[in-house]
Amino acid sequence: MLLDAPPGLDAAALARRVCDRHRGIGADGLLIAHPGGDGADVTMELRNADGGRAETSGNGIRCFAQAVWDDAFGDRRDLIVATDAGVKVVRRIRRNGPDEVDAAVDMGQVKIIDEPRGWGVEHAAVVDVGNPHLVLYDARSVDVDPARRGPEIEATFPHGINVEWTWRDGDGLAMRVWERGAGVTEACGTGSCAVAAAAHSWGLVGARTVVHNPGGPVTVELGDDGTATLIGPAVRIAEVELSWP
Amino acid sequence: MLLDAPPGLDAAALARRVCDRHRGIGADGLLIAHPGGDGADVTMELRNADGGRAETSGNGIRCFAQAVWDDAFGDRRDLIVATDAGVKVVRRIRRNGPDEVDAAVDMGQVKIIDEPRGWGVEHAAVVDVGNPHLVLYDARSVDVDPARRGPEIEATFPHGINVEWTWRDGDGLAMRVWERGAGVTEACGTGSCAVAAAAHSWGLVGARTVVHNPGGPVTVELGDDGTATLIGPAVRIAEVELSWP
Repeated sequence: MLLDAPPGLDAAALARRVCDRHRGIGADGLLIAHPGGDGADVTMELRNADGGRAETSGNGIRCFAQAVWDDAFGDRRDLIVATDAGVKVVRRIRRNGPDEVDAAVDMGQVKIIDEPRGWGVEHAAVVDVGNPHLVLYDARSVDVDPARRGPEIEATFPHGINVEWTWRDGDGLAMRVWERGAGVTEACGTGSCAVAAAAHSWGLVGARTVVHNPGGPVTVELGDDGTATLIGPAVRIAEVELSWP
Repeated sequence: MLLDAPPGLDAAALARRVCDRHRGIGADGLLIAHPGGDGADVTMELRNADGGRAETSGNGIRCFAQAVWDDAFGDRRDLIVATDAGVKVVRRIRRNGPDEVDAAVDMGQVKIIDEPRGWGVEHAAVVDVGNPHLVLYDARSVDVDPARRGPEIEATFPHGINVEWTWRDGDGLAMRVWERGAGVTEACGTGSCAVAAAAHSWGLVGARTVVHNPGGPVTVELGDDGTATLIGPAVRIAEVELSWP
């Protein structure tokens, strides 16, 4: 993420350059902090690696908050962040060291839209978390190859879809994900919320559950009002000073 | 690369951590500078992303020299670098700005070992540049998919091999590469030398030629003594301060 964006910054060009894994730093996206905005402490501009603007990211906003807390607002437990998807509150749950926090993000409404049949699994649901997800629950999902199955399944939805395969893992759930526009990824915040909400509706887990993403576990809390809160760590890796003009 | 490595550094563990594209900075390898050594100005320790030690890298050593020139020895045109493959001289050809140089590296002997038939191309050669290469020359190589063909071809060599497909491009050559142990890459310094030496032996190019790698062009100069010099740019992207203990 970029703190203190200079005026007139070409954010799309910078994101493409920074996120390039051969000629830049390499990243899934660039988060840019702008001061204030809309009654918030700070505004988050999210750019994908291709330079395109994205609304928000449940995992990315925790990283954003970690860096902002480091740089300013370190005494504020609740950080008010303006995003293209509205104002979000990121709550610091605890500090795990100088470079690591656990934080909780309000992910808004999670709605189960449909429970389609025909996917050859025990349960299936289409879930709206601001973006669309197909959640497939089956004990055999552990053997699924998301890189092979993801494109086939996505192609059956006219506007594409994110696909999650989930199964029980200890007290919680495990998940593999195919992200629309990104392919197989290590973790998906909205996908974790979709999986938790669907599995809860099927009576498989309680209102608070751990979802083991390939990149690590997050916790999802489902509220009585249909909202989800996503809780997980954010770890600072490095401070980077670009050599570019 | 890491300047001023602390004593007792676990270089293998650091390389794995730094090179991790999800939880670290993300890189093909880590270059560590140690002061002096063997009459040299500086010693280069090269670690692959898996932590394993590699002897040298024709493209990596230019990046190493760029950083060392920035940090020290800026007044020295010829930098003497001790590597696991012997002492190498890196010559600064010119500065292109505060963060960019063109530099030349002596790559040692390049030997054409064999000219095998049966690969369905106009010319083929097995070339030793310290590591083994199979160079395939054909105008139709422009359509080859290295990710598909590379593993098939490599499997026919008991100890594996690097594979380069090359064809004429302007005054020079274009190249696609499959690297043993790394797969399809954007650029290969020893491969560029192998391609230039083989194409020169077939009368296709002169003793000095440009080789267009997917990641950009390098120039190879072949000496009368059977050695090759690899010339190309090195650009500083960023200075990174790791947050790790």
